[in-house]
Amino acid sequence: MFAKLFKYQRADLIKKGYTMHVPADVPAEKKELFTENLKAITRNKDHLFLFAADQKIEHLNEDFHGKGIHPDAAGPQHLFRIAQQGNIGAFATQFGLIERYGMQYPDIDYIVKLNSKTNIIKQRPHSLFWGTLTNIANILYNRDPISSKLWSVDDVAALKQTSGLSIRGVGYTIYLGSKYENKMLAEAAQVVHNAHKKGLVAILWIYPRGMHVSSASGFELLGEAAGVANALDEAELLAGATGVANALGADVVKVRAPAKAEQLEIAKQAAGNTMVVTSGGKQVDKAELLKRIYEQIHNGHINGAAIGRNIFQHSLQDAIKLTQAVSAIVYDNATVEQAKALL
Amino acid sequence: MFAKLFKYQRADLIKKGYTMHVPADVPAEKKELFTENLKAITRNKDHLFLFAADQKIEHLNEDFHGKGIHPDAAGPQHLFRIAQQGNIGAFATQFGLIERYGMQYPDIDYIVKLNSKTNIIKQRPHSLFWGTLTNIANILYNRDPISSKLWSVDDVAALKQTSGLSIRGVGYTIYLGSKYENKMLAEAAQVVHNAHKKGLVAILWIYPRGMHVSSASGFELLGEAAGVANALDEAELLAGATGVANALGADVVKVRAPAKAEQLEIAKQAAGNTMVVTSGGKQVDKAELLKRIYEQIHNGHINGAAIGRNIFQHSLQDAIKLTQAVSAIVYDNATVEQAKALL
Amino acid sequence: MFAKLFKYQRADLIKKGYTMHVPADVPAEKKELFTENLKAITRNKDHLFLFAADQKIEHLNEDFHGKGIHPDAAGPQHLFRIAQQGNIGAFATQFGLIERYGMQYPDIDYIVKLNSKTNIIKQRPHSLFWGTLTNIANILYNRDPISSKLWSVDDVAALKQTSGLSIRGVGYTIYLGSKYENKMLAEAAQVVHNAHKKGLVAILWIYPRGMHVSSASGFELLGEAAGVANALDEAELLAGATGVANALGADVVKVRAPAKAEQLEIAKQAAGNTMVVTSGGKQVDKAELLKRIYEQIHNGHINGAAIGRNIFQHSLQDAIKLTQAVSAIVYDNATVEQAKALL
Amino acid sequence: MFAKLFKYQRADLIKKGYTMHVPADVPAEKKELFTENLKAITRNKDHLFLFAADQKIEHLNEDFHGKGIHPDAAGPQHLFRIAQQGNIGAFATQFGLIERYGMQYPDIDYIVKLNSKTNIIKQRPHSLFWGTLTNIANILYNRDPISSKLWSVDDVAALKQTSGLSIRGVGYTIYLGSKYENKMLAEAAQVVHNAHKKGLVAILWIYPRGMHVSSASGFELLGEAAGVANALDEAELLAGATGVANALGADVVKVRAPAKAEQLEIAKQAAGNTMVVTSGGKQVDKAELLKRIYEQIHNGHINGAAIGRNIFQHSLQDAIKLTQAVSAIVYDNATVEQAKALL
Amino acid sequence: MFAKLFKYQRADLIKKGYTMHVPADVPAEKKELFTENLKAITRNKDHLFLFAADQKIEHLNEDFHGKGIHPDAAGPQHLFRIAQQGNIGAFATQFGLIERYGMQYPDIDYIVKLNSKTNIIKQRPHSLFWGTLTNIANILYNRDPISSKLWSVDDVAALKQTSGLSIRGVGYTIYLGSKYENKMLAEAAQVVHNAHKKGLVAILWIYPRGMHVSSASGFELLGEAAGVANALDEAELLAGATGVANALGADVVKVRAPAKAEQLEIAKQAAGNTMVVTSGGKQVDKAELLKRIYEQIHNGHINGAAIGRNIFQHSLQDAIKLTQAVSAIVYDNATVEQAKALL
Repeated sequence: MFAKLFKYQRADLIKKGYTMHVPADVPAEKKELFTENLKAITRNKDHLFLFAADQKIEHLNEDFHGKGIHPDAAGPQHLFRIAQQGNIGAFATQFGLIERYGMQYPDIDYIVKLNSKTNIIKQRPHSLFWGTLTNIANILYNRDPISSKLWSVDDVAALKQTSGLSIRGVGYTIYLGSKYENKMLAEAAQVVHNAHKKGLVAILWIYPRGMHVSSASGFELLGEAAGVANALDEAELLAGATGVANALGADVVKVRAPAKAEQLEIAKQAAGNTMVVTSGGKQVDKAELLKRIYEQIHNGHINGAAIGRNIFQHSLQDAIKLTQAVSAIVYDNATVEQAKALL
Repeated sequence: MFAKLFKYQRADLIKKGYTMHVPADVPAEKKELFTENLKAITRNKDHLFLFAADQKIEHLNEDFHGKGIHPDAAGPQHLFRIAQQGNIGAFATQFGLIERYGMQYPDIDYIVKLNSKTNIIKQRPHSLFWGTLTNIANILYNRDPISSKLWSVDDVAALKQTSGLSIRGVGYTIYLGSKYENKMLAEAAQVVHNAHKKGLVAILWIYPRGMHVSSASGFELLGEAAGVANALDEAELLAGATGVANALGADVVKVRAPAKAEQLEIAKQAAGNTMVVTSGGKQVDKAELLKRIYEQIHNGHINGAAIGRNIFQHSLQDAIKLTQAVSAIVYDNATVEQAKALL
Repeated sequence: MFAKLFKYQRADLIKKGYTMHVPADVPAEKKELFTENLKAITRNKDHLFLFAADQKIEHLNEDFHGKGIHPDAAGPQHLFRIAQQGNIGAFATQFGLIERYGMQYPDIDYIVKLNSKTNIIKQRPHSLFWGTLTNIANILYNRDPISSKLWSVDDVAALKQTSGLSIRGVGYTIYLGSKYENKMLAEAAQVVHNAHKKGLVAILWIYPRGMHVSSASGFELLGEAAGVANALDEAELLAGATGVANALGADVVKVRAPAKAEQLEIAKQAAGNTMVVTSGGKQVDKAELLKRIYEQIHNGHINGAAIGRNIFQHSLQDAIKLTQAVSAIVYDNATVEQAKALL
Repeated sequence: MFAKLFKYQRADLIKKGYTMHVPADVPAEKKELFTENLKAITRNKDHLFLFAADQKIEHLNEDFHGKGIHPDAAGPQHLFRIAQQGNIGAFATQFGLIERYGMQYPDIDYIVKLNSKTNIIKQRPHSLFWGTLTNIANILYNRDPISSKLWSVDDVAALKQTSGLSIRGVGYTIYLGSKYENKMLAEAAQVVHNAHKKGLVAILWIYPRGMHVSSASGFELLGEAAGVANALDEAELLAGATGVANALGADVVKVRAPAKAEQLEIAKQAAGNTMVVTSGGKQVDKAELLKRIYEQIHNGHINGAAIGRNIFQHSLQDAIKLTQAVSAIVYDNATVEQAKALL
Repeated sequence: MFAKLFKYQRADLIKKGYTMHVPADVPAEKKELFTENLKAITRNKDHLFLFAADQKIEHLNEDFHGKGIHPDAAGPQHLFRIAQQGNIGAFATQFGLIERYGMQYPDIDYIVKLNSKTNIIKQRPHSLFWGTLTNIANILYNRDPISSKLWSVDDVAALKQTSGLSIRGVGYTIYLGSKYENKMLAEAAQVVHNAHKKGLVAILWIYPRGMHVSSASGFELLGEAAGVANALDEAELLAGATGVANALGADVVKVRAPAKAEQLEIAKQAAGNTMVVTSGGKQVDKAELLKRIYEQIHNGHINGAAIGRNIFQHSLQDAIKLTQAVSAIVYDNATVEQAKALL
């Protein structure tokens, strides 16, 4: 249905293309650098495969050790080895990790993640009965999420200068609907603008979250639990998130993947000339992962994938192969079967 | 009644005129630029038709997709196409969108919106019975609105310089009565003053909102629900809002339209030499829209209209025609019938 | 009783005089300018009649339109006409209004008000029974007042430079006892110091207010409702407020008038060499207003009056006459009868 | 008991001496100035009598007018007259007061107090029964104390330069245990460091206070109410406070006097090379005051006294005599009887 | 089990080594200085014995006086004497203490602790029954921990310059899981980056703490109370903390020691090339202390120990001997028996 509904606009988009789009706030003397950075991670197409691994702060150690996780994943060097030896568009991780390992892995194209929070603070869901002491205790206990800028774009520029590393852009996460949304929107807008002033690509991670976000907005959960019934609402909120990214001037937005690839169509439209990639979420079967990515690009018409756990929780060799398979789909128009042959 | 009551002052106003009023904080070397910017969007009259489209953050995707919304509206390019091809005074939207599309639409006169919030956080109304657990849960759950400055006037000046775009002014929203009113008043005062220092026009969006604003102040709702009975209170709060804009030094203030055009008379008085425009709100019948705008200008004596959804939720061609009809009323003194002929 | 008790100190004060007192933080090169500014508004005496009109933000439109308010008051120009044509010491109003009208009214001596808040947020009084759900709901609902600096002293200096207007000083409001008292004390201290560094006079508006201020401290209410019984407490809190102004280095403090003029004696003592003026509050009979001002100066020994509503809610002609009558008392030692003859 | 326990360390301390200790963050070119400032207020000994009078903000007018307070105290000039004509080490009061009176009292050695709050916000004690609505109302009503920096050390340096006044140092108050402790610790640390950079002496006022400080920590109350039983806890908390001052780099710390002078022994140890003085608190009999000061120095081994109310609530002549008596004990090793002879 | 599981990675680590690792954000002209600083405290090995004594603010006086604490510990000079005369890698304490004693103890290698809070605010544990008034009172009463930066890295650089002291690095504490986690993460990231820019070593103290951290995360308590059963969770949270340090770019992280040395294995992996040291906690038997340190290094594979109370609560002579014993294990590969012989 979506495919038909938006046929005109999409065709229009694809013909005119937003590849190599240079934002108006990139100064003349940085336009070439910006284009070069964007080309490097998109391979001169409007596609992106982001190896997204900021989980050492976001999820603490739970993504790096335990059942179903290969022992290779225990140390942070694993991430850099995959990024260096694998086939990816860019590796997104915190400034601190790049500062500590970058000199040993100089061939990687980096996206420097500028904010992060841990997952220690958990929300209690609203009680079934609103006006109860239990619900009041919950409301008082809950804290809306906030992730603050830890490093500035100027810090990134200084690191790039000092180290000579191939830093292509920056990343920042926003939790829409949080009580602190205003602080994150303000930091994000400045991160995007300052990145452009330095000729760097700006990527936003956007997730609706907090006490005022109904559980229906937890995309991952929704997709798994709720199915088709309220799929439209999910698509609309997703489209809200990608639209915010476009209105903030971002070059790329990373959102949670919805239950069905087709639900991305409207979010892609709302994103305008901001590229859309989806996160892979928890580990799934490798074949299933490739199928999802394929469908999101071909049925959801988005620009690619941002994968972390589904890559780094495997052994180094398996992870490297997986990056080759994902890149085949994202950059080289491979079918799922062709990609699977690379595993 | 209002027309009589304020006859003296209005006549006085109109004779002396505030057209081309140059605020005292515009430096000598920027006076010509300021006048040029104000002339461009008012067409050398004291009238303004603002195509106001900051909804991609304010309302997420709900204004751009769904029942009654033309598929053309799904992508943000639609807004720029209307602005470029239509007949408007200026196009107000976020810095981020202008940065992403401006170079492709260089003929538009831009007002750069500097702050925005999403509509995810909803208020629960006070319970009928104050001292109940339900009401306490509501009070604890509610969050007063805050919209923070995402970009500075200096950012706008840099964008203008870098891009060469025709940026005429800036916009900022204040929620009066919010717990965070003080933060928004402070940012707004600085935005206005800094805009003037750069020769830019300053426009404030002002809405009373928050837990301490009685529901009677929700103009749109009130107009529809309550009718004549408490119409005076609505008019007074509206006049408070326009008076605040004048006291903050704004050149233009945008407020919610009241139920009846005559209610604007007192708000226009309170605004002094700050121009007043009203927002169009949710989509209504095209003829009804034109009639409202006409009455607000001719019976409410305000300076024009700020329309968003009522334009962009139509197809590109319909939207273009609508801008011509609205401009005919706002700038060319057309009757409703004359304007309707342009649809 | 007060007259006797403090006879020694007052005589001492009056003999030595604080007229033309130059604070120690006024730099040498600004001493002449500071003295000139202070002389201009005090007419070379230790008296001040301040036309205080910041109500367009503080009270929204309720002071400018309605029963008992002359239609002339509806537009902000009214304030400037009174200030220009009347006989006042100085006109205190927001930066924004001065920026919008100042060039048309260049003969006025201005005090630029730097902060303001609206009156939308109302406090619910504590319940009679402390440990009830109703009281808990009230405590959760209430918000202590905060008024933030909207413009800096540097902004004022720039405006003065750009416009050539006769700006004599700045004003700032503090709500003592508010949860946010610390923020306002800090801004006020800096406003006073920065004003002195620029040779400008610094005036503080100080009101104890907030959830922790017992209702007995609402001077206006107290005066009207409680009479003599607890008048002493009121006097002490008033003296606390004027003492704070002195300790912050202010040249003038504006406080709410107490029920009886004699109650000002102790506040005048506590103020030391900071001039004390009282606000006029809600509109009263003209003769009553003049009598109050006379008594506060002659029995309360304060330095003058700060009047807003009691002037501008009248027609332009009546307001102008009233300023002449008030100035006669404040500056020319007129009796009430002599002053009334000017109406 | 304490005397024995710490005999070794104290002897050690006294022999090596901390007199004229120059902190390591005083730059070479300011060492002489710092030493001169410290010598001036300690009279080249490790003793200090601070005339501490910041009550015009801290206690509003209640210390300056009322039963048992001499009428001389009503005006702030009283403080300066005492400081100029009496015999004190230094006069500590707010920047604002010094700015307003300093030029008339140029012979005083000043300590500029940089922060202050009023006493309007009162705490409600925790209810006997924790889980009651009354207790919840109390917790919601209470506000932990915060006192913010009103003036910077740079402001003090500018005032000193502009005025030529004999400014010897700065003072700042911290409420340990308050929810806002972190803000005050941060400001205090910077005040101390910045003072040293300018060659100024840094004095901290430190009081544990707030909802999480058990009533047993209210030293004054404890001393009076609880006696010997829990005297040790009081001594430990006091030692915590003086230790914090040392760890913040302060030259002098002012704490509340404990019930018994001997309790100061451990606090003196914890303070290391930071001088310890105690506040006098509410007015007591003059002879009693002198006895306390003597015992605190000779039995508690602290460095002196910080007296305010117990001096300025007397007539000018009595106050002057009192300063001479206190100085005799603090600086000249007088006995209580010798000191009393000076009254 | 851990030893086997991670054999490959650990061998890899040890072979490649992270000794003398220079982070990528150390500018070229500071690389030599950074290496020198790191060598000084690690003695050219990848080991560190930190004498960590910031308790004068963190624990007030309770670690310095009382049962089981030698009277030598009462004064802060004790800490400096141990650091000067003992055998340690570096002495970590607050800027303020270094400023006050540093010039007398110039031979010490200093780590300047930049933030601290007191322990006055205690948490009430959640009630067994969530929806009770008691639990609501607890939630309202509790305050999540926050420790703010008291001094900047620039202050440290200035102190180093002015004093000539041997300052090797800086330290900062983060409470993960606190409501204020975002503020501490942001300050910590900047502290690390700014330290590197000055060629200084950056050490983070990281503890999960606050209302949302289940009691199971209180490592010390857990180890003592819960034993083997949930030991894995403890290990995982610990690994989360060390991983955050690595992602923030820290050179060293200090965490609470877990119940069993083997639990450190996974935390060491997660730390990557950030050195891991554990805190000693409350005083234990000297032999037990040495055994723990030995096991943590040899079975937990961490880099050393950070000991405070277990050293300074002894007499000067005993403390000095203890530092020699600890250094023998940490730096010279001594057995527990060999180390005990030095006591």
